[in-house]
Amino acid sequence: MPYGDVLDATGAPDKLINQGRCGRYHDQARLDFADGRAGISIFQSEAAHLPLRLEMMERHPEGSQAFIPMSADPFLVVVADDAGGTPANPKAFRTQPGQAINLLCGTWHGVLTPLSEPGLFAVIDRIGAGPNLQEHWFEQDYLIED
Amino acid sequence: MPYGDVLDATGAPDKLINQGRCGRYHDQARLDFADGRAGISIFQSEAAHLPLRLEMMERHPEGSQAFIPMSADPFLVVVADDAGGTPANPKAFRTQPGQAINLLCGTWHGVLTPLSEPGLFAVIDRIGAGPNLQEHWFEQDYLIED
Repeated sequence: MPYGDVLDATGAPDKLINQGRCGRYHDQARLDFADGRAGISIFQSEAAHLPLRLEMMERHPEGSQAFIPMSADPFLVVVADDAGGTPANPKAFRTQPGQAINLLCGTWHGVLTPLSEPGLFAVIDRIGAGPNLQEHWFEQDYLIED
Repeated sequence: MPYGDVLDATGAPDKLINQGRCGRYHDQARLDFADGRAGISIFQSEAAHLPLRLEMMERHPEGSQAFIPMSADPFLVVVADDAGGTPANPKAFRTQPGQAINLLCGTWHGVLTPLSEPGLFAVIDRIGAGPNLQEHWFEQDYLIED
């Protein structure tokens, strides 16, 4: 997929471990860090409710960013193409229960948007010095409907 | 902690992001890979029920291993000291809802043990060639009680 990866446990596992009791779906995210290193942080975010206005998108030029929900609740993902340094043609989707996502390095995306409490996620992204955030505020908002 | 890290969102966040709507609890895991690289895999494991017999422990000499539950369900963690190449003095605990764990490189631990279905986890561990698993089967089992 051009924007990133959807991580889940569908289909046959790549490997059975623990005497056959556990399936491993192996290496599902294209982690990519220009410098620094991978780290795990915990995010706790207020929930949002549809319909909502998409006013801003952001990207991280120095690293990929994976969002792993610590609940079975779906969350909203917004990604966009890049058109000369600004996000274009935004697309929104709601994850299925049991799905995590990984955004490729430099992918325009909306901020983390859980649709229910407690909005708890583990985030695997770049730990390193220097700026790694670009924001773009739209002149005209997009409305994301249910 | 000597065996690893507990990752959660307790206390004040290290940083508020997304216009104050999201707290970032920053870089909570001591990821450590002798070679290879970090990757994210999804594990789906059968649930176990207490009391259970601890027959075996394992360790990964080439990398740390983080387990992020994709539900709010507690899971069982067993860790042990190393005594000349075998696990000694095993300790078991049940996580709290909203906690993930990271096992340090080389820490003896029990296999992934969810206590309820669906037993879905994201695992951040070493992706690389070569062996990275040592198992030790106890001559006499330990009983882990509720």
